[in-house]
Amino acid sequence: MNEAKTTLLKIGGSVITDKNGELAAKTQEIDRLAEEIQRANVQNLIIVHGGGSFGHPTAKRYAIKEGFKEDSQRIGFSETHHVMTVLNGLLMDSLIWHNVPAVSVTPSSFMITENGRIRGFEESLLRMLLKMHFTPVLYGDAVLDTELGFTILSGDQIISALATKFNAEHIVIGVDVDGLYETDPKTEKTAKLFNHLTLVELKKLQNKLSKPTARDVTGGMFGKVIELIPAIERNIPVTIVNASKQDNIYRALKEEKIEGTRIERE
Amino acid sequence: MNEAKTTLLKIGGSVITDKNGELAAKTQEIDRLAEEIQRANVQNLIIVHGGGSFGHPTAKRYAIKEGFKEDSQRIGFSETHHVMTVLNGLLMDSLIWHNVPAVSVTPSSFMITENGRIRGFEESLLRMLLKMHFTPVLYGDAVLDTELGFTILSGDQIISALATKFNAEHIVIGVDVDGLYETDPKTEKTAKLFNHLTLVELKKLQNKLSKPTARDVTGGMFGKVIELIPAIERNIPVTIVNASKQDNIYRALKEEKIEGTRIERE
Repeated sequence: MNEAKTTLLKIGGSVITDKNGELAAKTQEIDRLAEEIQRANVQNLIIVHGGGSFGHPTAKRYAIKEGFKEDSQRIGFSETHHVMTVLNGLLMDSLIWHNVPAVSVTPSSFMITENGRIRGFEESLLRMLLKMHFTPVLYGDAVLDTELGFTILSGDQIISALATKFNAEHIVIGVDVDGLYETDPKTEKTAKLFNHLTLVELKKLQNKLSKPTARDVTGGMFGKVIELIPAIERNIPVTIVNASKQDNIYRALKEEKIEGTRIERE
Repeated sequence: MNEAKTTLLKIGGSVITDKNGELAAKTQEIDRLAEEIQRANVQNLIIVHGGGSFGHPTAKRYAIKEGFKEDSQRIGFSETHHVMTVLNGLLMDSLIWHNVPAVSVTPSSFMITENGRIRGFEESLLRMLLKMHFTPVLYGDAVLDTELGFTILSGDQIISALATKFNAEHIVIGVDVDGLYETDPKTEKTAKLFNHLTLVELKKLQNKLSKPTARDVTGGMFGKVIELIPAIERNIPVTIVNASKQDNIYRALKEEKIEGTRIERE
């Protein structure tokens, strides 16, 4: 028997928190998404969520991503991890309330990075959880780093690492815009959405956007997509959808046709 | 240079929760203990706490300790782990507020048991945290088990496993009575406290209490102490103190003389 295929769902921090606030959770959105996840009833699902206005302001204030440089950052590392567990707790509460057998798995308790990149991690625990029909939930986290002391591990990097380890069938990326645009849809009303991208097209785009003079004109979305290239190279398709719109996550998990950006190897 | 010696502090669930309630945290006690821990300022400290009225009622309702037997238990496992993260979050919040660089390390994210006993676990992450002067905080948790599917891993077993792995200097066990008594001090006013026990005396007591006809007349305390025998055999002294009394944890961490039960190899 082949190992069952895994579906990976990323929920962006901007979907479940108000990025203009601090520690501002969108609890109604969390409840709506938990209900959609329960209704989709996908076997072998792993969820990863971002930090939004929980992780980011604290991490930034103490420059956690840049690594350990002075003693005063230490409490900032503690705080960044702690506020992420609080946001995670709100999502777990809602998932379990909706009868999803979700189990939070703390990245900083079993993943260590090396210069910001995940080193190998023990995956047997996640595999056991899936085999027992649990839904593991991970999140972007403050983690220890062999070179930097500590740093920030993004949910996007975790998704990509899990996708290749677990030979995922499909990656769904839920964000607060309709997909990947040529320019930032939040500042440019006429920004054009990419409906479909191949790996070759994505790499051309990467080339263009990574010039030293360029900035991420897509409003930060492209940086997240770049993380997924190793997964796309392994023929794992990615669907970027607007998770702030009712039923989009449900439909994406069900592999129904939906507005968004689909990225495939060819 | 020798590796710095580690101090282990167990905080009983009955100290930080009201065992007569459900999900009833004693937040004033949590704050008082966090302040004492901050004031004691012990280097290389690892804290482990119990579940009290968070973990225990849920675990019992779904018979999580007995292992996976039917599908209806699955959500109970999710819930038991979740409520433990909630209690842990209250302690973390208070420790960080008191400027203790505490980092919660989730047992179920890196420890797996075999028939209820911890199998080897990757300890390098805890070692890195200590080296960077963080205070790791663990707790009794619902964990995966290679034989049972899942079970409950007690904070007492975690303390003992850490003590032997980290060659601890001292184990402080904070409970809601004055130490280990000959009989249950909660039901017998005249119960006699053991001030000092050697390993030989402890084992004699174990022999007497583990007869099939015997029950744990010490009010459950003896079962916890039994877990610590491997550590005591390695010459790690154990101090059981009443953590509900002001300054007892501070004084025990400072190795000041204090009412309680001291257990030493000889």
